[in-house]
Amino acid sequence: MRILILGGDGYLGWPTALRLSRRGHEVAVLDNLARRAWDRELGAESLTPIRSLQERVAAWREVSGRSIAAFVGDLCDYAFLEPVVRDLRPDAVVHFGEQRSAPYSMIDRRHAIFTQVNNLTGTLNLLYALANHAPDCHLVKLGTMGEYGTPNIDIEEGFITITHKGRTDTLPFPKQPGSWYHASKVYDSHNMMLACKIWGLRATDLNQGIVYGVDTPEIELDERLRTRFDYDGVFGTALNRFLVQAVAGVPLTVYGRGGQTRGFLDIRDTLACVELAILHPAEHGEFRVFNQFTEQFDVAGLAAAVREAASAFGLSVAVEHLPNPRVEQEQHYYRAANTRLLGLGLRPHYLSETLIESIIRVVMRYHDRIRPELIAPAVDWRRTNNAGAPVSELPERAA
Amino acid sequence: MRILILGGDGYLGWPTALRLSRRGHEVAVLDNLARRAWDRELGAESLTPIRSLQERVAAWREVSGRSIAAFVGDLCDYAFLEPVVRDLRPDAVVHFGEQRSAPYSMIDRRHAIFTQVNNLTGTLNLLYALANHAPDCHLVKLGTMGEYGTPNIDIEEGFITITHKGRTDTLPFPKQPGSWYHASKVYDSHNMMLACKIWGLRATDLNQGIVYGVDTPEIELDERLRTRFDYDGVFGTALNRFLVQAVAGVPLTVYGRGGQTRGFLDIRDTLACVELAILHPAEHGEFRVFNQFTEQFDVAGLAAAVREAASAFGLSVAVEHLPNPRVEQEQHYYRAANTRLLGLGLRPHYLSETLIESIIRVVMRYHDRIRPELIAPAVDWRRTNNAGAPVSELPERAA
Repeated sequence: MRILILGGDGYLGWPTALRLSRRGHEVAVLDNLARRAWDRELGAESLTPIRSLQERVAAWREVSGRSIAAFVGDLCDYAFLEPVVRDLRPDAVVHFGEQRSAPYSMIDRRHAIFTQVNNLTGTLNLLYALANHAPDCHLVKLGTMGEYGTPNIDIEEGFITITHKGRTDTLPFPKQPGSWYHASKVYDSHNMMLACKIWGLRATDLNQGIVYGVDTPEIELDERLRTRFDYDGVFGTALNRFLVQAVAGVPLTVYGRGGQTRGFLDIRDTLACVELAILHPAEHGEFRVFNQFTEQFDVAGLAAAVREAASAFGLSVAVEHLPNPRVEQEQHYYRAANTRLLGLGLRPHYLSETLIESIIRVVMRYHDRIRPELIAPAVDWRRTNNAGAPVSELPERAA
Repeated sequence: MRILILGGDGYLGWPTALRLSRRGHEVAVLDNLARRAWDRELGAESLTPIRSLQERVAAWREVSGRSIAAFVGDLCDYAFLEPVVRDLRPDAVVHFGEQRSAPYSMIDRRHAIFTQVNNLTGTLNLLYALANHAPDCHLVKLGTMGEYGTPNIDIEEGFITITHKGRTDTLPFPKQPGSWYHASKVYDSHNMMLACKIWGLRATDLNQGIVYGVDTPEIELDERLRTRFDYDGVFGTALNRFLVQAVAGVPLTVYGRGGQTRGFLDIRDTLACVELAILHPAEHGEFRVFNQFTEQFDVAGLAAAVREAASAFGLSVAVEHLPNPRVEQEQHYYRAANTRLLGLGLRPHYLSETLIESIIRVVMRYHDRIRPELIAPAVDWRRTNNAGAPVSELPERAA
């Protein structure tokens, strides 16, 4: 199949490109390299050293003998996007090409508007390009489990059947996004649903949990194929933060009570889910939603698991609780369905002590690159301006 | 009270400003005059002649002795908006300042993106301006009943209590917007809900039905205070279209089967609802939703009512069914709650034959300004480009 991967230079987009290329698909990536620019803006950096997109593609050709076409440009620029879609006529588009950090979106007004306008414009451009030039293409779009928030009822996959005052309908699951970023994914979902309805497009929305892990079978072939590992206060996840803190010998920082529960999955399962969605496409006119995670954990439980695994390396780890920079429930009911991808054949890699140890090994390998000042929460949901200080003062202010 | 009305030059914004000014409030309007620009873009015009904003304000001063401050500029321009909010420190902001036509949003990609980006950016700018400079201000925002779509269950006011697998929660009512425009209102609702939660702002979302009528007690004081009456295929509503067709002696055009049912209200009730919301503000941190309509009608029923009323003027009226340019259910269940504004004291003006006759009288007065070529549906939901032809050909293509 011809597959176009938007955001194909990112943490997940690049490993997805490698996997699909190795499986014999004709893969192209499109990326505006914005993620690398945001690192420069924040003065942050991936713990793992990553090569330029051009070097990555060259290394993959050398290692595998396969070509990945790379288009560098912005999804929001239709004059750039349209000819790519028109000339490539992909069978599937995998859309990772968005601003994907909740804290980044909460920095200030400018970042809030940037996140929502960027994500919404890119997806609308894509929907029009598909309708005009590749109406049979299957759109596989990355959403987030964060669209649902933390309702006091079970979370279903995209839709829920409601009986109300004696009548019944199946309706979009109510959404309660907790950041401007999470909200932007809700808006994409609505726009995709409408495009499928009015133009007969076909789309799968993958409402993904929090992804962990840095190794995939393709990346393990050559160090130059490495993908990023974020641990800073803006783009890093709680689990990555804990792993770096354990290796750096500083306390693991749990935000608030730590009862915040979310869905998680291994990076290899993300790749498998995307491939399963591609191999079993939605029908014309169908907008379907899969919840893409394999396990649920709460933050305090993750910290405990990291402490346990770290002890195998002789690392003694303390846990401390920080005031929560987010506005969120810290103790709540959470139970989300995730059977549709399992039904297509997903065989999950669960988060075991062994896996945590393997990530710790990678973190230890790049120990010299750890910058502890990047770890503190840098963005407070309650403030309207988290970037008021000059850049040079940011680390102090953040800590 | 100090009240700032965004979109205060528009069909409803201007009469709202007049009413609140007459009631003794200190009223300011803010508008970028975009609605007038869209008329020029489309080659359309209000049936009723309307004065410039500056002439309107001067006429009102002359008639009432009261001043309305006018700020001409764009909500999307924070450098313009911020000082207005900071210096005025309003007690209430009424937000009509958005692109409000579903067909306009469906013209093509450019109009789709413009509508969503414009509406979302303006509202986000406003939320930040309020959080930074007027955190006690009550935001009264115009939403639309179209956010809900046409579910097969009763529509509640913003939220619904769902019992699912033995657990219960009250959650945002599931939304099924049927155009990029309607979707933009859903996105505003989410953004307001989040701002109330994280910053303690207070907001009322008025999910309004379709408004009819052109006369209010203030407008009746002086012809120079007239508000607009749209009947064209892009900004006109079905009822306005029927009234103009009846007077023009052409058949009333019902889209599809005509069973499409919606909520409606009189322009005087819109003004009363906005005032009731202002006088009974939301609490800090509260995001509440009122469904703002007084009656439900289906399109075929409206056509029949217009035909009946027109006969009093000796007008003989035919009804014809056109292929529906929209993608929507044409026969469906529809029952929406609207008790919250009634509970605050709203006394509705129902659509009677007398009222229809009074609007027909206004249409007859401006009979010479009717341009029948503007009435045909100009935008087809199933097309991705409704503006491909040069402007000079638009009327032919549309018909």
